[in-house]
Amino acid sequence: MTETTIEIGPFECTNGGRIENALQRVTTYGDPRSPAVLVPHALTGSSRITDWWGDLVGTGKTIDPARYYIIGINALGSCYGSSGPSTDADFPYVTVRDIVAAQSRALDALGVSQLELVIGASLGGMQALQWAIDFPQRVRKAVMVGSHDHQSAMGIALNAIQRDAVALDPQKGIRIARKIAMLSYKSDDLFRERHGRRADRKAVHRFDIEGYLEHQGNIFERRMHPQSYVALTEAMDSFDVRGAEPVDTSPELLFIGIGSDWLFLPRDVRAAAERFASRGYRSTYREIESAHGHDAFLAEPEKLAVLLSQSHSSA
Amino acid sequence: MTETTIEIGPFECTNGGRIENALQRVTTYGDPRSPAVLVPHALTGSSRITDWWGDLVGTGKTIDPARYYIIGINALGSCYGSSGPSTDADFPYVTVRDIVAAQSRALDALGVSQLELVIGASLGGMQALQWAIDFPQRVRKAVMVGSHDHQSAMGIALNAIQRDAVALDPQKGIRIARKIAMLSYKSDDLFRERHGRRADRKAVHRFDIEGYLEHQGNIFERRMHPQSYVALTEAMDSFDVRGAEPVDTSPELLFIGIGSDWLFLPRDVRAAAERFASRGYRSTYREIESAHGHDAFLAEPEKLAVLLSQSHSSA
Repeated sequence: MTETTIEIGPFECTNGGRIENALQRVTTYGDPRSPAVLVPHALTGSSRITDWWGDLVGTGKTIDPARYYIIGINALGSCYGSSGPSTDADFPYVTVRDIVAAQSRALDALGVSQLELVIGASLGGMQALQWAIDFPQRVRKAVMVGSHDHQSAMGIALNAIQRDAVALDPQKGIRIARKIAMLSYKSDDLFRERHGRRADRKAVHRFDIEGYLEHQGNIFERRMHPQSYVALTEAMDSFDVRGAEPVDTSPELLFIGIGSDWLFLPRDVRAAAERFASRGYRSTYREIESAHGHDAFLAEPEKLAVLLSQSHSSA
Repeated sequence: MTETTIEIGPFECTNGGRIENALQRVTTYGDPRSPAVLVPHALTGSSRITDWWGDLVGTGKTIDPARYYIIGINALGSCYGSSGPSTDADFPYVTVRDIVAAQSRALDALGVSQLELVIGASLGGMQALQWAIDFPQRVRKAVMVGSHDHQSAMGIALNAIQRDAVALDPQKGIRIARKIAMLSYKSDDLFRERHGRRADRKAVHRFDIEGYLEHQGNIFERRMHPQSYVALTEAMDSFDVRGAEPVDTSPELLFIGIGSDWLFLPRDVRAAAERFASRGYRSTYREIESAHGHDAFLAEPEKLAVLLSQSHSSA
């Protein structure tokens, strides 16, 4: 594992903002001479892929540094080493397109021109798809997990309320934001099975589910900068490539829906795959059955690994 | 329409609290000599049934004061004329069972011993079911709409986060609470159709759905006491009659699920109907098809009216 911070210089955002000296935090695994794989993270991740996707990426795993040069990169706006509101008080509004453009310049600096694969889930999947659209000559294949081609009205609503909570009180509000987010990442069935109506084990709250959410809020408050959270949820909400005119349809696309996901509905993931197929892309839809909801991309790596192996052997 | 505030005297709560001189705000419609119908309200309603269920209750409607003596009653803990945190600074923790027990004493004072029908939706449905369980000799029929026999883990989670927001700031927090609640009352399909990714019409926010939620927060802040909201969400969360031992199964039960309701899943409503049937009740399940989600009980009165008319004519 190699960690580095790359200065990509002045960066102009699509909506008119400017970052004077944009930084991109990058973590790489494996030999730079191997085929390159880019793994953008979801809303709260970092460039250290193995911290959050260690069951899928790592020695002996589906995406193995023995075979690939694997690149993790912290999204513009986040608080894990790249430029964002935590480093830059007047950080501008950024979109998924901006995040990907900044990454492309970091990859230029790394000397990586071709990507065998870009794979991400949720906001990471949005980045993977944007890569295929904006840099078709650099991407052989893009895989989007629990993610599709636009942020839905319900998704915007969930994020907007979370931003309200942060605006009310950055520290206490981000705890509330995380709790709301956790509901959207899980499923009714999972909560029923795991928590049901059981009493809080610490007897601080009435119910176990309340203690669970409190615990999630506690962890999150310590690890996420509130304004980075606002910036990245806004980037998510900005995402809509349904109207993208295909210039070059050479990247292969694989969309993976999650059965119980109510943040990125599997029917929407399927519709996105079909939309891109109708534009001339080799675009495929697969689905994971899981009770975990959106979080299945973290909670069920083995199911994801099976799909990726099938897809890879057929590629 | 007649409005009255009934003093029911000292009231002992199931969890040990006490209200010195409990008040029950009551609104009645029709002739006291007609068969009586009780219509408990949902989380934020009042005793003025026609203010919120005027398409179902009123002259010429399914529940007609020309035919019935119709009683609306403000739940204990609410802020529309009954005792609650807005009138009593040390108002105790109350359950749905307490709310119903207080109502039974108000009905005693009104001279109403028998109810032809108790009908309610959401928290109102919980009260209707509790009436059938606790006062089986007084209830001929109970109808529960978008409601079943327990608050789910997801329901508790949604309410707990809303209470967090109110605890952070009563006025601004209740706006956030209402926004969260609105998501749980509506459906992804409805938001998609009504708001999609359209721009905010007032250009204050980026998206229309954000402006809509802001508007809902504004209205709600003016009409709901934050601590009443906390008290009634706690009462909802307390509700679980799955283990109730039937003493008298004479009340007829009708459970009505709503197809797109993700707060009270139709499969749970059906399961509750079946659970009560297996205990010896005449218990029936019907379902409304609607894209409105939980709010269909307000948004689709004509579909509800059809089911109630069918049910009534067969009774």
